[in-house]
Amino acid sequence: MTTQIIVLNGGSSSGKTGITRCLKAILPRPWISLGVYDLSQALPAKMRQDDAGVELGDNGEVEVGASFREAEAAWTTGIAAMARAGARVIIDDVFLGGRDSQDRLREHLDGLEVLWVGVKCDPEIAAGRETARGDRVAGMAVSQAEKVHKGVVYDVEVDTSHTESIVCARAIAEHVR
Amino acid sequence: MTTQIIVLNGGSSSGKTGITRCLKAILPRPWISLGVYDLSQALPAKMRQDDAGVELGDNGEVEVGASFREAEAAWTTGIAAMARAGARVIIDDVFLGGRDSQDRLREHLDGLEVLWVGVKCDPEIAAGRETARGDRVAGMAVSQAEKVHKGVVYDVEVDTSHTESIVCARAIAEHVR
Amino acid sequence: MTTQIIVLNGGSSSGKTGITRCLKAILPRPWISLGVYDLSQALPAKMRQDDAGVELGDNGEVEVGASFREAEAAWTTGIAAMARAGARVIIDDVFLGGRDSQDRLREHLDGLEVLWVGVKCDPEIAAGRETARGDRVAGMAVSQAEKVHKGVVYDVEVDTSHTESIVCARAIAEHVR
Amino acid sequence: MTTQIIVLNGGSSSGKTGITRCLKAILPRPWISLGVYDLSQALPAKMRQDDAGVELGDNGEVEVGASFREAEAAWTTGIAAMARAGARVIIDDVFLGGRDSQDRLREHLDGLEVLWVGVKCDPEIAAGRETARGDRVAGMAVSQAEKVHKGVVYDVEVDTSHTESIVCARAIAEHVR
Repeated sequence: MTTQIIVLNGGSSSGKTGITRCLKAILPRPWISLGVYDLSQALPAKMRQDDAGVELGDNGEVEVGASFREAEAAWTTGIAAMARAGARVIIDDVFLGGRDSQDRLREHLDGLEVLWVGVKCDPEIAAGRETARGDRVAGMAVSQAEKVHKGVVYDVEVDTSHTESIVCARAIAEHVR
Repeated sequence: MTTQIIVLNGGSSSGKTGITRCLKAILPRPWISLGVYDLSQALPAKMRQDDAGVELGDNGEVEVGASFREAEAAWTTGIAAMARAGARVIIDDVFLGGRDSQDRLREHLDGLEVLWVGVKCDPEIAAGRETARGDRVAGMAVSQAEKVHKGVVYDVEVDTSHTESIVCARAIAEHVR
Repeated sequence: MTTQIIVLNGGSSSGKTGITRCLKAILPRPWISLGVYDLSQALPAKMRQDDAGVELGDNGEVEVGASFREAEAAWTTGIAAMARAGARVIIDDVFLGGRDSQDRLREHLDGLEVLWVGVKCDPEIAAGRETARGDRVAGMAVSQAEKVHKGVVYDVEVDTSHTESIVCARAIAEHVR
Repeated sequence: MTTQIIVLNGGSSSGKTGITRCLKAILPRPWISLGVYDLSQALPAKMRQDDAGVELGDNGEVEVGASFREAEAAWTTGIAAMARAGARVIIDDVFLGGRDSQDRLREHLDGLEVLWVGVKCDPEIAAGRETARGDRVAGMAVSQAEKVHKGVVYDVEVDTSHTESIVCARAIAEHVR
């Protein structure tokens, strides 16, 4: 069956965005990318400094509140509807709850052909890339690198520690039907 | 009945983004904004230089191809689903086809409570703001300023020529139930 | 004598950047713009969260430390040298110290033909624009709107409260020789 | 003698910006970074589409015109003055003319203690990163990868093909006195 959704899960600065851009460049048909970062931008700026929204700790820990979770549920329902209507969608996500996050997303995507991709990266290397990007809160990369993969089951795994985004994208593309 | 979708239609540099940010700041509940600009960013970069995608003429005319239209239809279906699932969504759009564009969007939003907002701006003033932004192709503002409103029917109209974004947002917010 | 430097001074969200882009678009010869925002980007990211660098209070107050001041002095010396070497430079600044800031800058620009421009904006209107931009700390606009002009002497003043950037730029351009 | 200027030379997408951010993060004293990209942003937008300014060919070739060269000369004079006034400056450059570009820059930096750094990257790998960035004209990376190093003499060379930005930055930092 034709792949309808590609889910990329990985910690901050693991390289999801670069892989997403490469996938969109090399896959023959047009894919839409929509991730948790897009959702956070689509929501009111005030929710980024708010208990009910998303809170960033001094060491880069992310706390997600009830309003954000509520918006996220409707958002994901919408993405599933896009795919059911014929769009091919790449979801770029950070499973802060590991396996629980995957289960929640899986329910929303029920009946769709999903390719689950784990984007891994050595925490120290991800931390270095966080410094090189210069626009992320220091500490997010390390705090997320491992916990987002806890108990998560994948169809493909890539590791960006020593492999370029474009090479990871090609490996993933081989699994896209 | 509770407003589920706010559609803002206006030409390039008419001030839709500023009004959207103000609406998200002043409306009491969280609203998600997703516009045609977000769609163009979500699609592959190569589609921005492609017959089937979006083409920009030397004077800022925008031509939209078949692949883009196809993706847009699925995208809009998804946004409608988000709203049906409980999200409140602001759609920031440019009706290049005037009334036809509105009819197409209206069909997708069938059954939802929509507030249709016209964002107007004097073409010369919009052209000046295009220069002040510095990141848009010169000519888009003038070429779109009037044609995007042709035959379109609104619940509210604002004119940003001499009225600030925040004041326009407050006027719109009064119609949000 | 030919104008070598244009200094635009105004509070956050008063419209300096838009006017600067318009000036560069309408002035016949190429002008370089370099402002205090560029300096803050050119310095290490860590200095933006640091006593010795720039600190942002919860209500948008800006505190500038010794290391920043030291870097700023060398930076301004360099800009003066650019102008002496034939470049035409627009300096986009925020005189947090009012008259003292102007005196300090004037010393660096000694011997150069400078056009001093005050960019004023009603605090409430600037606050609304801050909301519409969505990327600034709330409160900066109001906290700076008036104090940056205290005791400062100008060759031209523009008020963006009810006048477009491009119109302000044209008024300034008339004083550029 | 104390290093006053670090010059990083490399083709588009070779990793200069990431290394620059890492250097600013790890070097104990504050460094200012100013590169040819900053200059192109500081100049009028119209110069980016202009014979006298910078022209981009369909395959990513860059042509630089007389007005740009004139502005660049004054700009570089200014950066040298910043360093003489005590600032530590990282110049991020693309020597389109190879050795000639270095000679021209060396003249401007006369009397200053400069660390010349070559940032190399396998052309194919740089092309992949160009795709992953998504905001650069395709072809620039390959067209510049080798020619910018022609005849250029360095104090240190790093190769980002298989080495992270932060690791390259540490190697460079060891040569900073």
